[in-house]
Amino acid sequence: MGKNIYVGVDVGGTKILATVYKLDDNYKLLGKAKLKTPYGASNDEVIKQVEAAVNQSIEASNVKLKKISAIGIGVPGTTDIFKGHVQFAANLGWKDLPLKTILEKSFSRPVFVDNDVNLGILGEQQFGVAKNVDNVVGVFWGTGIGGGIIIHGKPVYGNTFTAGEIGHLILEKDGQTCGCGNQGCLETFSAKWAISQAIDEAIQKGQTSTIKPASDGKKSPVLKSKVIKQGYDSDDALVKQIMQRAVDYLGLALANVVNLLNPQMIVLGGGMIEAMEDVLMPKITEAVNKHTIPFASVDIKPAILGDYAVVLGAAGFAKLQLQRF
Amino acid sequence: MGKNIYVGVDVGGTKILATVYKLDDNYKLLGKAKLKTPYGASNDEVIKQVEAAVNQSIEASNVKLKKISAIGIGVPGTTDIFKGHVQFAANLGWKDLPLKTILEKSFSRPVFVDNDVNLGILGEQQFGVAKNVDNVVGVFWGTGIGGGIIIHGKPVYGNTFTAGEIGHLILEKDGQTCGCGNQGCLETFSAKWAISQAIDEAIQKGQTSTIKPASDGKKSPVLKSKVIKQGYDSDDALVKQIMQRAVDYLGLALANVVNLLNPQMIVLGGGMIEAMEDVLMPKITEAVNKHTIPFASVDIKPAILGDYAVVLGAAGFAKLQLQRF
Repeated sequence: MGKNIYVGVDVGGTKILATVYKLDDNYKLLGKAKLKTPYGASNDEVIKQVEAAVNQSIEASNVKLKKISAIGIGVPGTTDIFKGHVQFAANLGWKDLPLKTILEKSFSRPVFVDNDVNLGILGEQQFGVAKNVDNVVGVFWGTGIGGGIIIHGKPVYGNTFTAGEIGHLILEKDGQTCGCGNQGCLETFSAKWAISQAIDEAIQKGQTSTIKPASDGKKSPVLKSKVIKQGYDSDDALVKQIMQRAVDYLGLALANVVNLLNPQMIVLGGGMIEAMEDVLMPKITEAVNKHTIPFASVDIKPAILGDYAVVLGAAGFAKLQLQRF
Repeated sequence: MGKNIYVGVDVGGTKILATVYKLDDNYKLLGKAKLKTPYGASNDEVIKQVEAAVNQSIEASNVKLKKISAIGIGVPGTTDIFKGHVQFAANLGWKDLPLKTILEKSFSRPVFVDNDVNLGILGEQQFGVAKNVDNVVGVFWGTGIGGGIIIHGKPVYGNTFTAGEIGHLILEKDGQTCGCGNQGCLETFSAKWAISQAIDEAIQKGQTSTIKPASDGKKSPVLKSKVIKQGYDSDDALVKQIMQRAVDYLGLALANVVNLLNPQMIVLGGGMIEAMEDVLMPKITEAVNKHTIPFASVDIKPAILGDYAVVLGAAGFAKLQLQRF
């Protein structure tokens, strides 16, 4: 184990955050670096940028590379955690990429790779709001809705590494078509892409709103969380109505999670929660309680690690995986 | 551990099955007894009958009581497995009953109590179709629809012992009211009580069917699985239509389980599957595959232990619990 120093990396679609942590019962940030993810670049270029971020974070920490116990990497995609292969990461254009093998060659340190959402909830469970809670479900509400599940103290990966897709729980049998190909998924009601689309469509049909419509004929981009918050705070009837529907269906999906798994805690994070925590947390809790079966109870808490949940989870994951050998 | 001899009991609403097993990697039935559950009786009378069944099974096995390592009991209700308290069992009229304490006094052997559906899937996972599968979900389709979940090789009980309620996954936000108080649960589409009710209502409204209507004004009782099978086999259009709907929603619910947990296997048991396995298994598999997310895959198998799943699970549970101390 050496000095219990781990690198945790969050490879996002727009930025790469690399960190160096000393991990005991608690955590201490020793160094960090944030670089842009090169847009539309080749696999090699993105990997070079990940390596640069890791190297810069290690330099900033004043720790020698050989003192690093292991490196954990979070990627926005489906990952075979045993092989460290990224099976599919749409935002990075990666498909069946042997990231562990590549980075272990570069750094001569053990590397472990997992999905970023799994690592986000693992971070909260190891060092954040769900510390030492053995059965916990994490939901990250942003452009999409991601989820991660920890049961009996260990992440649930699933048979083909696809577990945790709370955003793709189907809540209306013949509902709106989702990006995943199914119909009526939670995301079609509540993801920021769906909220933005619903607001846009209503405006195009002539409803008034504080939100500016997209220019003629164009599809509006996904709204920023703070723009939705401003609309909500200024009593924009359209925004309030569409947000209420989003919350109702998120509550329904989480109630299904409770009816199935009865976890001790649900942790809610992501851009929407960060922007509107005060408004959303009580409303979501009410919506969940409305649909849970008798005798089931669950604690619903906001995430507390913010942008550092994934990197802490990645560093902690590297530590856990190292201890298995 | 002694000789690895365990008693497994299934306390049902109509019958009590008690068994004595020698459990190694495999299982050997040494004795059994089946008694009726006294109807509308007091707690004490039902418990006396459970004790009688256990005693008779032990006598039949020619094993001395003191050679029994432990006793496992499956009950149709919510159970605190740590205390061995039955919190609520509607069919038996039990509420907060300290069954473990009572039976340990009677037998002077360690007693462990769990929900019967949890034990049914544990039986299949220890000795049946899901032997050695670490992540498996069991669904028992009968009058109601029960479920049990095993993750990382261990049953999932949940924070307040209510995990596994697949029958109460909500599939239609403002759907039909369910016995649990919520609306649009899987059971309202697919449980035998709902199928029977839907057939009855259609007949009362004048639709023709091979199934005999309930006498005037009365609500029909829950149909026997073999009556539904006969209707189906004789091309009864009403039965076929209502069964197709039941299968579609069961498939949708199981797809949600796959999208959330991505288990290696789903085991299907219960009266409906036992009566119509050939017809139902391919239809359910098709319905599940229609709604699962890309890259998720799961094996869907019929249960193989039938009436012995719960008693084997109960005996195996007693063994597992004993090993924890």
